[in-house]
Amino acid sequence: MDKHALNEALEKLADNPARSASELARSCLRMVAETALHAPAEDLETLQTLLAAQAHQMIEAHPSSAPLGYFLKRWTNRVAELSQDGLEEARCKAAEYALVLVHESSSAVRAVASRAREIIGEGRVVITHGLSSTVMEIFHQLKESRVRAIVTESRPSLSGHQLAAQLSAWAIPTTLITDAQIGLFVRRADFALVGAEALLGDGSVVNSVGTYLLGVAARDQDVPFYACCESYKWRPADSEEFALPALDEAQLNSPQLPHVTPVNIGFDITPARLVTGWITEHGIPRSFLDVSARRR
Amino acid sequence: MDKHALNEALEKLADNPARSASELARSCLRMVAETALHAPAEDLETLQTLLAAQAHQMIEAHPSSAPLGYFLKRWTNRVAELSQDGLEEARCKAAEYALVLVHESSSAVRAVASRAREIIGEGRVVITHGLSSTVMEIFHQLKESRVRAIVTESRPSLSGHQLAAQLSAWAIPTTLITDAQIGLFVRRADFALVGAEALLGDGSVVNSVGTYLLGVAARDQDVPFYACCESYKWRPADSEEFALPALDEAQLNSPQLPHVTPVNIGFDITPARLVTGWITEHGIPRSFLDVSARRR
Repeated sequence: MDKHALNEALEKLADNPARSASELARSCLRMVAETALHAPAEDLETLQTLLAAQAHQMIEAHPSSAPLGYFLKRWTNRVAELSQDGLEEARCKAAEYALVLVHESSSAVRAVASRAREIIGEGRVVITHGLSSTVMEIFHQLKESRVRAIVTESRPSLSGHQLAAQLSAWAIPTTLITDAQIGLFVRRADFALVGAEALLGDGSVVNSVGTYLLGVAARDQDVPFYACCESYKWRPADSEEFALPALDEAQLNSPQLPHVTPVNIGFDITPARLVTGWITEHGIPRSFLDVSARRR
Repeated sequence: MDKHALNEALEKLADNPARSASELARSCLRMVAETALHAPAEDLETLQTLLAAQAHQMIEAHPSSAPLGYFLKRWTNRVAELSQDGLEEARCKAAEYALVLVHESSSAVRAVASRAREIIGEGRVVITHGLSSTVMEIFHQLKESRVRAIVTESRPSLSGHQLAAQLSAWAIPTTLITDAQIGLFVRRADFALVGAEALLGDGSVVNSVGTYLLGVAARDQDVPFYACCESYKWRPADSEEFALPALDEAQLNSPQLPHVTPVNIGFDITPARLVTGWITEHGIPRSFLDVSARRR
């Protein structure tokens, strides 16, 4: 692919405002591809330093996002190996490899969705929490299968509104609830499905805050709870080592009061013992199930 | 008390914007007292009919609120017995009895709070959800005991903001969280305390939607969960018979989408098996504990 063709490819992959972990990774890959093509650099080494710095900055800005780290590290390693190439050729190769990874990510998401579709079957009710491009793709693949959705608004990002809009465009009957209504509605669902920002060593699920409440309510009411995500979201950390980043409190529009501290943590961890199964592009990994079974 | 003195008493008991179940009952009692004194009626029978109709209307408008039904029915029965009195005397007696019931309700709330204070002790962290004048009174009584609070915003009413403002006025250090963060914060609390709109036959707790999520998360993380409420909130209905009223969806500011139905149910039911204890003005009733123990 030459520079012009790459530019066109990048324009087609327009940035989606959705910010699920996988979307974020793909969108950052598109950005580094753009930088590879256009960044001011007189020689290859300067370009490589600059690209490595940008990738590093992106990873640091989203420490909880497993796919972002996974893909950008693979990309940076490949870029570092481009020492035999001329500057222009290296620019194209770096950008092209980023787009290959975008494709790899999208394919993995579609593969996860297609396994989930088999498990769910026809005419079922699915409840979800948070915005996951994997869960969105599952609904996409189920839209002809009389699926119905229960979607939480997911305060404070209100990403549930975005998901509801997409489901509405696919004519999927959707019930939109506040996060606090999870307990009332989980019993009306055949399956609880969530995506993941990351999977921890034992299969615990890092996802939008409130996912743990869906997990614990689903267990209490005997509704199967599946984490649906690409296998590269797994990271060997323990729950205790995993820092949950606090987001901007201003998002909450809380009143300013002298003795009151508003807190806005964006993620929580659902322990593996609450997860019925992990649906990945390779199937359901036995190791998580074993860990989970031992822990119950 | 003559009509003038009653008027003054009513003015002092200014309506509080808070709308916990007990507050609502007291505020309706003040309203019927006002009507008793001032409603246009030429004879006692007309007055009685009018007052019974107003009380009935109030009960119908808030079917889930146990204290409202309890107090207004007691009041209506007393008003119906006033047949031996002249019109003016009956007006005063009806208004006075309503204020006696307001006092009875406030005393019961204070008695519950004082039992809760003994259980909680010094320097503890208490998490709560929803607006309860009983829980507010507990914090009031604990404010010199180095209590700290974790308060949910309680979407969509945002009644948690009101509670936080009151706690701030009492200089109680308070963490204000979204409902979805309940699972993250419950482990930081020594006690989870909630009020109740009503207690059902087996001790299940009807309260602001999301209370069940606090109950199930508290059980999962071994935090004691207490329902704090006046004994007259008990009603013999089963969970299955109890209809949870849907509130106005417009409150949610959800997007208008063709296949999407926003739902706004204001209450949920926390099953008795998740309740560590019920704190009432008479202590902790054995019967609920027994039922609860049998169910586990």
